[in-house]
This record gives sequence, structure tokens and C-alpha cells, in this order.
Amino acid sequence: MANIRDLAKEAGVSVATVSRVLNGYPYVSEEKRKAVWEAVEKLNYTKNIQAVHLAKGRTTIVGVMLPYIHHPYFSAIIEGVSKEALRYGYQLLLFQTNYDVERELEALERLRMKQMDGLIVCSHQADWEIFAEYQEEGPIALCERVDGYDFFTVYIDHYQAFAKALRYLLDKGHRRIGYCIGRRTGPNSQARAAAYEEVLRDAGVTPQRQWIFDGCLFLEDGKRVIEQWMAMGERPSALLVTSDQVAAGIVLYAQRVGVRIPEELAIIGFDNDPLAEMLGITTVALPHFTLGERAFRLLHHWLETGNVPRKQEELPTRLIVRATG
Amino acid sequence: MANIRDLAKEAGVSVATVSRVLNGYPYVSEEKRKAVWEAVEKLNYTKNIQAVHLAKGRTTIVGVMLPYIHHPYFSAIIEGVSKEALRYGYQLLLFQTNYDVERELEALERLRMKQMDGLIVCSHQADWEIFAEYQEEGPIALCERVDGYDFFTVYIDHYQAFAKALRYLLDKGHRRIGYCIGRRTGPNSQARAAAYEEVLRDAGVTPQRQWIFDGCLFLEDGKRVIEQWMAMGERPSALLVTSDQVAAGIVLYAQRVGVRIPEELAIIGFDNDPLAEMLGITTVALPHFTLGERAFRLLHHWLETGNVPRKQEELPTRLIVRATG
Repeated sequence: MANIRDLAKEAGVSVATVSRVLNGYPYVSEEKRKAVWEAVEKLNYTKNIQAVHLAKGRTTIVGVMLPYIHHPYFSAIIEGVSKEALRYGYQLLLFQTNYDVERELEALERLRMKQMDGLIVCSHQADWEIFAEYQEEGPIALCERVDGYDFFTVYIDHYQAFAKALRYLLDKGHRRIGYCIGRRTGPNSQARAAAYEEVLRDAGVTPQRQWIFDGCLFLEDGKRVIEQWMAMGERPSALLVTSDQVAAGIVLYAQRVGVRIPEELAIIGFDNDPLAEMLGITTVALPHFTLGERAFRLLHHWLETGNVPRKQEELPTRLIVRATG
Repeated sequence: MANIRDLAKEAGVSVATVSRVLNGYPYVSEEKRKAVWEAVEKLNYTKNIQAVHLAKGRTTIVGVMLPYIHHPYFSAIIEGVSKEALRYGYQLLLFQTNYDVERELEALERLRMKQMDGLIVCSHQADWEIFAEYQEEGPIALCERVDGYDFFTVYIDHYQAFAKALRYLLDKGHRRIGYCIGRRTGPNSQARAAAYEEVLRDAGVTPQRQWIFDGCLFLEDGKRVIEQWMAMGERPSALLVTSDQVAAGIVLYAQRVGVRIPEELAIIGFDNDPLAEMLGITTVALPHFTLGERAFRLLHHWLETGNVPRKQEELPTRLIVRATG
């Protein structure tokens, strides 16, 4: 198997020169450059890089199934996965499904056909049953809590994270509490809706459906929330906001139109985004980046050792009290 | 080739029921669910999805070469690429190279071996020559300006974008101008450095190396810039900041420590991030997202029609004047 030393020997130049040529650095004579590229061709150097993987029976590709990338939640997971993938020399094959089951099945089928070594599922639409079936075909790691199936998952308990923030607001005397969310469907949103209903009712407070703002994904959605809030007859005195980007939008727009935070409206964000720290936003730190890192790392351990993990790992969340609530 | 109608016929249920079962929706009897999954297995439904691609001689995979994802510039390009990939039913194979030439060669070799249909190169280390060679093996689209080679590229002219902002500051009477940048190497940074030197010298102003702040990538880097700026004997009166996230960090931290923007320090960001709009930051809009979209779309056109584009497409930039400079 040719390596950089063989290339140097074949080309009659130093290893340093080979490295300079491969890296496209200047100050190498045309003659030496030519000799190096001829050696690359003669020794099938690039083909051999690929051959190493094939010999190991590996693709060094890990699939990542997610509905779309253009969303802060999924891009944070992807960043965590990709940091670890880079470290271990793996490539990522992204399956953007748009929650279309056919695309999800395609990902699973590529796993079965060994076009990748394993699959990380960030979020999905298809029945759990089909994932359970394909788990026999190749390693699958999930980023959501699953009850009733024997999956390998890393997850955040969104019910408890939401409940923690709600109890904090109740303790501070708030009784008119609403929340902002991305979409109403999906297991994370359902867990939050359940926490909202149950924690408030336990405290003798009536949940108010009209104080649930949905479609809140990006900074600019904060403006709409403040506008809607200002137009309300009876207004919530506090909002949980499931994204710090949206919380920052709310805080900055409130500043502009003269709504006093937290006196008129308390805000608790989620994520612990650097922007939340900069703006003094009280937030629940959610380890999305860590979720991606951990999912990859455990899948990698599985691939390297062959030991199938059968555990559910919960990542901790933490309320960070700052100025907005 | 089995489709959803064949599944319904085989299972003796309605098409709607098949769809409900595949999508994991509730309210389907256990008996019907079982019948559908048996039909899926009997008709090799999932295998057939894959077979459609194989029959076309396509992988429906497009590679994306980039040093790392965890960086706002590359994640914006990726988001643009992925939006279009989703639309046309393509998967993305990410090659995070960390600017390691062996990893770049691996991507090119996978292209040669038809493990993907095409490759988008966001940034790279290896010599142009090797890309020119591999272009014979499969479609390659570049996201950087290349002179002297016949590549298909979509790019932003960073020299002109930087020059535009510098001339604006000079016109407003600034003579002490510095800038904040991510890294000093790479073609985009070199283009900006050249613009800084040349535009200032043309105006009879001496460029000041000590007013170049590097390592400025994220919001939190803005704090460090303000601290360094405050510690300087002779300070610049204006800064170009090559990322709006960093510009926002500067503006927010300046507010906290009482530095008046733009009276004491004018700030011009780049990108036109929603945060810049929210904070009233003057910025040069850079179409990174569009860059990704366009690169994918033209690669897709190439794959569909077989017509090799041989053009260099420049995307426009625009100065948006707001409150900070």
C-alpha cells in the first residue's frame, strides 16, 4: 500500500516536497511537481486511500436522518455529530426527510445494503416498529426518548426541562403563564404540552390555550410574539420560549417598543445560546450539541468494539437564572 | 415495481390505511397494521425504492467538501445546498476535511468511483490541478473564485464587497479604520487583506496591522474585540467586521460597557444576519445561503441535462446602511 514515503521514493524527492505538492503550497519547481503527480498516478495513491476502507469492510460513512437542516435544533445536533465524525475520520450522509416516510425507508434501506456503517436518527415520522426491524440490519442510534422498544438512545427529557422552568415561574408568583414553540406535533412538543397542562393544574392554575404561540423558530419570530402579546386583552405575565434565538428576538423587540422585561413580561428561554448570555436571558440549558456528540461517540464505540449498547442515556438540563425572569 | 397502491391491494386495505401505517399514525387496528407490514415485506417495497435509483445509474448523493461545519460561513452554505437537495430528493455526503489533503483526495476518489453523482467544493487545501484532473471523472462545482482554470464556480467577490464598505467609511470621513476577521489565510481573507491595503493607500490612508483583529468567528468574540479596542493607545474609529454575529457581539458588549456606537466606534458587519437587522447594524449583505442553493441547482441541472456548464457566476453583494456606521 503506497504511502507518502513511497511517493517520495518514486518521485525522487523528499517527503516534505511530496507534502508541499499535495497541499498545493508554492516554492516547488515545476519539474518536482510533475514528478510527484506522476508518482501519485503510477502508485494509484488516491485509489489506495479508498482501498484501506474497503479492506476493513467499512464505508466510514455514518448516516444522519433528520427532517431538515435549516433549523437551529437540528443544526446544533449535526454540529455535535460532525465534530466527532471529523475526529474519527467519518463522513456524514445526511438524509433530509422532510418527515416523508419514503425517504426514511430509503435511509434504512441504504443501511441494510451496507452503504453506510450506522445511522443516527434525530427525528422521524415512520412507526417505531420499522426502526426496530432495521436495527437487525445495522447499528441505529436515536436522539429521542423511546418507551417500549429496546433502542439505543441518547435524549433530553423535555417534559422535565419544561416542568422545571414552569415550577420556577410558579414559585416566583406567576399565575398567567404561556409559551412559544416551534411546532405543536412531534414527541418533544407533546412532552412540553403535557408538562404545561399537568404542572399548571397541579398548582391550581388553568392552562390557557390562547397563550401558546406556535411557529416560533427564529430570532425574527420574536417580533410577532410581542405584537400578538400587546394586542391581547388578558396577557400572560411570563412566557417560556423553547428557543433562545426567539427569546432574544422577543427581548430585543420589547426593548424597541418599550415593553419592560421582566416587569411586564418575564421570559425564560431554552438552549443557553451565547446570545442569551449576552442579553442576560434566563434560560434552561439544553445540550443539543452534546446530544449529537454523544450519539456519534456511542455509535462509533459500537462499530469499533462490536458491543451493542442497549441503554437509554438521558442528558441533564439546567436552569440558569439571569435578568429576564 | 411495487407502489403504495400495490401494497394496499396486497394487504386488502385502503391506500389511506397504508399511508397511516407507514407514517405510524394511530387509530389503525393491529390486524390491518400487520397486513400492511407483511405486504411491505412480501413486495420488497423498501428494496424497490433503492432499486429505482440504481436503475437510473444514480446514487442521488451529492458530496459537499468543506473544512468543518461548525462555522457560520460553511453552515450557511450547507443550508442553502441542503434546501435544494431536499427539494430534488438528493442526499448530501459531507466531507469534513479539516483542510487535510488526504481527506480531500478521498472525496475526489469517491466521486471517481461513482459513489456520488457530483461534488460541491466549499473550500479546500489541495492544489487546483488535482481538482482539474478529477473534473474529468465527475461533475464538480466550486464556491470560490478561480482564475486560470476552466472550472464551474459560483462565488462572492470578497475584494469588492470589502472595498465597497471601506469606501463608504472613507466617504464618511473615517481615517482610522481596522477590521475583524476569522482567519488570516484562505482566498477570502487574502482578498479582504488586499482590499484593505489597496483601498486605504489609494485614499492616502496608512493601513494599520495592529488594527486587524483575527480569530473573530462567533458572537462571544465581540467582547474580546471591545476589550482589546479599549486597551489601545491609538484606537480605530471604525471597524469592518466580517461576520454579523461578531458585529452583534461588539455592539451588545459596547452597550454594556458604555462605548458609544457609532460616535466612538463605527461598526459595519457582513452577512445581513437577522440579528444585524434587529440591532440596527449597518452591514454588507453576503448571499452565502444563495451560494449554496445556486451551487446545488447548477450541479443538478448539469446532472439532469448532461450539459457541462463552463461559467463563473458572481453573486451580488449590497451595503445596507443602518444605525451603527
